[in-house]
Amino acid sequence: MDEFGLIDTFVAQFKVAASPRGPGDDCALIPRQGPSVVTTDALVEGIHFTRQFTFEDIGHKALAVNLSDLASMGAKPTWFTVALGLPEDLTATHLKKLGRGMSALAKAHGAELVGGNVTRSSQLSITITASGTLDGKPLLRSGARPGDALYVSGPLGDAAAGLEGLNPLTPAQRRPTPHLAFGQHARRLCSAAIDVSDGLAQDLTHLCRASRVAAELDSAALPLSDALLDYAGSRRSALPYALTGGEDYVLLVAVRRPRAFEAAMAKAGFAAEQIGWLRSGTGVKLDGVPMRGRLGFKHR
Amino acid sequence: MDEFGLIDTFVAQFKVAASPRGPGDDCALIPRQGPSVVTTDALVEGIHFTRQFTFEDIGHKALAVNLSDLASMGAKPTWFTVALGLPEDLTATHLKKLGRGMSALAKAHGAELVGGNVTRSSQLSITITASGTLDGKPLLRSGARPGDALYVSGPLGDAAAGLEGLNPLTPAQRRPTPHLAFGQHARRLCSAAIDVSDGLAQDLTHLCRASRVAAELDSAALPLSDALLDYAGSRRSALPYALTGGEDYVLLVAVRRPRAFEAAMAKAGFAAEQIGWLRSGTGVKLDGVPMRGRLGFKHR
Repeated sequence: MDEFGLIDTFVAQFKVAASPRGPGDDCALIPRQGPSVVTTDALVEGIHFTRQFTFEDIGHKALAVNLSDLASMGAKPTWFTVALGLPEDLTATHLKKLGRGMSALAKAHGAELVGGNVTRSSQLSITITASGTLDGKPLLRSGARPGDALYVSGPLGDAAAGLEGLNPLTPAQRRPTPHLAFGQHARRLCSAAIDVSDGLAQDLTHLCRASRVAAELDSAALPLSDALLDYAGSRRSALPYALTGGEDYVLLVAVRRPRAFEAAMAKAGFAAEQIGWLRSGTGVKLDGVPMRGRLGFKHR
Repeated sequence: MDEFGLIDTFVAQFKVAASPRGPGDDCALIPRQGPSVVTTDALVEGIHFTRQFTFEDIGHKALAVNLSDLASMGAKPTWFTVALGLPEDLTATHLKKLGRGMSALAKAHGAELVGGNVTRSSQLSITITASGTLDGKPLLRSGARPGDALYVSGPLGDAAAGLEGLNPLTPAQRRPTPHLAFGQHARRLCSAAIDVSDGLAQDLTHLCRASRVAAELDSAALPLSDALLDYAGSRRSALPYALTGGEDYVLLVAVRRPRAFEAAMAKAGFAAEQIGWLRSGTGVKLDGVPMRGRLGFKHR
């Protein structure tokens, strides 16, 4: 199948806005809009996924990691573009599955495919650029202050454990859920946010540097799933996954008024777990001890 | 150098909007804006370029092919994101050169780097998503009607000849010029447009299908550079480069009132060469004979 046939096969998996709005011209047309945000993130075969993932998984995850960036700014997804690097062995069937996994997630969050590109490549790669609109001010990494409480929007460490061969945590690794509704609800109640893609310690360090604050984590407060506790055998063995394992794609937020935040989030049906505090100074402490060494997760 | 160091080295080559506007948060912030367009295009090593290109060439071309898509819609560039796939042997020096080639072109056209992504990859790849604003209605592929005249914004075939080893046409292949000012000026005077990236015959076919018209090309009217005529030895030998060679990145436009168009473009200092006409029906004829076979240029 030639380039144009592959494009048609992929695009057919999406409910796309009619041309000239979406694919079909040299550019996609974006209507007049308020302040928006844009992000780009790529998945590369052998680095971010293997063929042990289904093609639906790959399509889902490629979009999910971008939507997670929108979630951390408190934005609502609008459009995205997809640039595919396709090795020779990729068939129309593979592309159909990849498109299906992606389009199901896109539909669930109201994100529209508006354009893309296909090229040959030795490794399968999916580079997505996604945009969202803001209903007010965005959440940034830089708004936190000493005294703010730190919360996460879900359990930590599952995705990293899911990397270690096929196990009950594999779905967390292959099908991460972008916490968009959490981000949109939390936006007005938080002072800063980041999504946990590189690992809690690493991403918390980014937030601390941008906000010029220090952080104290309470290891006993880190939310761990029962599946991770089972898999790791003990809370102690599970902690490294939660602290330095990447790809959880939960949101890490700083909150000035913790009680109001907890009440509002609980009322809206969201779990938000307090994991520590921000202080003046620099660096991240765990149970009072400065964290050192490799803070984050590096892809192979 | 680690991922964050490589990102810093690359970003340092650009005059970037200060965070939170540009890089530094999970997304870039885009201010409220009127109708806009967005496009994405990737260059992959071994497919679209080799290491015979300088890294400045690669950086220039990766952005140029995207800006050319904006040009064909009549848009004015605003922001772009860059996703880099970097093989292990890529050094900070390579990235600095790549960034320099890209930033010089970005600066010339007022395009701002607002975000990006870096990942390991077996092949060097640069995937850019670029956006521009429209001052009125966009130029589409679909607005042309039978009777419209066809024009191109510059000579054809140079880039294809420049692929055949080092020769005087190599710069046309490695450093294409996006015809942004032409597109912005021509927008109100044209009924349809496309940029010539896959070859004249192929891209004209796209325009004809989108507008539901046929086209007649006059081979004697195709603008060929002296350098291409010298290189090919004769006009006859040069024509295949012009007809089916890709990557010229000139604009192909359809015009309802040719005299007014020519006068307005000449007054604004643009060369616009008429190369044929649109008719009712389907297909593309060259000197009265239907074109068949391989119409376009395919990357290796």
